[in-house]
Amino acid sequence: MEKFELHILGCGSALPTTRHFATSQVVNLRDKLFMIDCGEGAQMQLRKSRLKFSRLNHIFISHLHGDHCFGLMGLISTFGLLGRTAELHIHSPKGLEELFSPLLAFFCKNMSYQVVFHEFDTKEPVLIYEDRSMTVTTIPLQHRIPCCGFLFAEKPRPNHIIREMIDFYQVPVYELNRIKNGADFVTREGEVIANDRLTRPSEPVRKYAYCSDTIYRKEIARQIAGVDLLFHEATFAQTDLARAKETFHTTASQAARIALDAGVKQLVIGHFSARYENEQVLLEEAATVFPNTILAKENLCINL
Amino acid sequence: MEKFELHILGCGSALPTTRHFATSQVVNLRDKLFMIDCGEGAQMQLRKSRLKFSRLNHIFISHLHGDHCFGLMGLISTFGLLGRTAELHIHSPKGLEELFSPLLAFFCKNMSYQVVFHEFDTKEPVLIYEDRSMTVTTIPLQHRIPCCGFLFAEKPRPNHIIREMIDFYQVPVYELNRIKNGADFVTREGEVIANDRLTRPSEPVRKYAYCSDTIYRKEIARQIAGVDLLFHEATFAQTDLARAKETFHTTASQAARIALDAGVKQLVIGHFSARYENEQVLLEEAATVFPNTILAKENLCINL
Repeated sequence: MEKFELHILGCGSALPTTRHFATSQVVNLRDKLFMIDCGEGAQMQLRKSRLKFSRLNHIFISHLHGDHCFGLMGLISTFGLLGRTAELHIHSPKGLEELFSPLLAFFCKNMSYQVVFHEFDTKEPVLIYEDRSMTVTTIPLQHRIPCCGFLFAEKPRPNHIIREMIDFYQVPVYELNRIKNGADFVTREGEVIANDRLTRPSEPVRKYAYCSDTIYRKEIARQIAGVDLLFHEATFAQTDLARAKETFHTTASQAARIALDAGVKQLVIGHFSARYENEQVLLEEAATVFPNTILAKENLCINL
Repeated sequence: MEKFELHILGCGSALPTTRHFATSQVVNLRDKLFMIDCGEGAQMQLRKSRLKFSRLNHIFISHLHGDHCFGLMGLISTFGLLGRTAELHIHSPKGLEELFSPLLAFFCKNMSYQVVFHEFDTKEPVLIYEDRSMTVTTIPLQHRIPCCGFLFAEKPRPNHIIREMIDFYQVPVYELNRIKNGADFVTREGEVIANDRLTRPSEPVRKYAYCSDTIYRKEIARQIAGVDLLFHEATFAQTDLARAKETFHTTASQAARIALDAGVKQLVIGHFSARYENEQVLLEEAATVFPNTILAKENLCINL
């Protein structure tokens, strides 16, 4: 299977602790890197991860709270100092470009590369990135300001041809692509050879959903149904439910309910409030509802 | 002796490494905290230092390069989340307020406290802070943009009275302050008692000088003559002298020469270029010229 990894760079919430950095993650899909959120310290954590800076061309910002974007300026400057030439694309809700452009103009004069801002509306799911192998779609969330998560989905790949059958029926090369994509084959004698005799299915597509920050929002289960991995914020324990509602955050048990409703394979919870010195309480709470849950932590790498 | 400590929060240069945070320090004078520069990650390092956030009311920024100020927004936000009420004063060369005000207005709406900007000219030494026990004066430096260091100087304290002599001459209470400040005492009989019979000198004043970033600038030795501790940048080794000149930085041996010329008691070097995996080479180079040199490192605390 080709590489599809999630690297946690930081999984604390707004108040930094000695245990956690602010939010940032990197998705590594076949050695292309995609950063999700960029809290203060993201570049140091990225350095620690030993992921190649030059492989990162897209950053997705969930919302314009400082703990999700204050690491951007440092990262952008560092890329400049390293002589980067490839464009860096930053995808975010509206407002980031207006806020950061004056800083870029002042602190990052004469950089060797361009920063390109792309802003999206957070109300409906929007396809914001697409390449040969993957799409990224926003997941509308509900926080104190416009906010959305991101669904990373591999594209279905063509079936694998069965060499022996192709040789046996003497399939011409120009037919191969059609067959890989599901077509049957008709021999010169007019015999129809069903596609499933000529090919075997490719690996199933894998999906990763990132949901932070948000109040408990059961509607998202439908959009993220069946994903291989769900990161969901679990800022609070159920005992702090009132505080969770008030601040538009989710409890560990609510995050697990989303995972259960969506039938995901694995849940990783994060964005922990600084009040929990021992996050085991959050894990236990979630695992009661959805057993295959783990706690995010800095420098954790999860294979999808 | 009353507390006068220097805490190194970060001592790397612009490119962060896994070994160093960007520049930030805290001077602790009698439990009042003064931050010098505020690179990315300063708030995390401040948290680690276990210094009390509420004791910090003044931040001094040497110059407007990102590795000296990108930690400000995170620090300011965190203070807000913690419900701070005391004003936070930020002293810097011209331009910081204009750059950061829009960010404060957006990210730090309705904070419980005020951020007050104070901007100074970097060409001449300026007294930028003064309280009962200390002054802070700028030290003009020469970098690619306006930049200055800071001289922290204790104020001379009144002499200590010698209780027995005060009793012996029956000195009235209302005379004590004058005597502490150096006045002689005249008895009712007209006898003049010299001040040095009534008092012993207070502790000598202590001074700390911070000089970063700058090209080698021997003129500063005069202003920082005799300081107890000098932090001087030593971005490069002497073998990279050309690079040091070109980028307006100092070599370790040049930093040591400043320390020697100024007759300081101790030198701590920092702002190391990422190219030196082993900074021992910088230490050895400096110590050849000025033996009482140490390397800065994160979480180091030096008592003056």
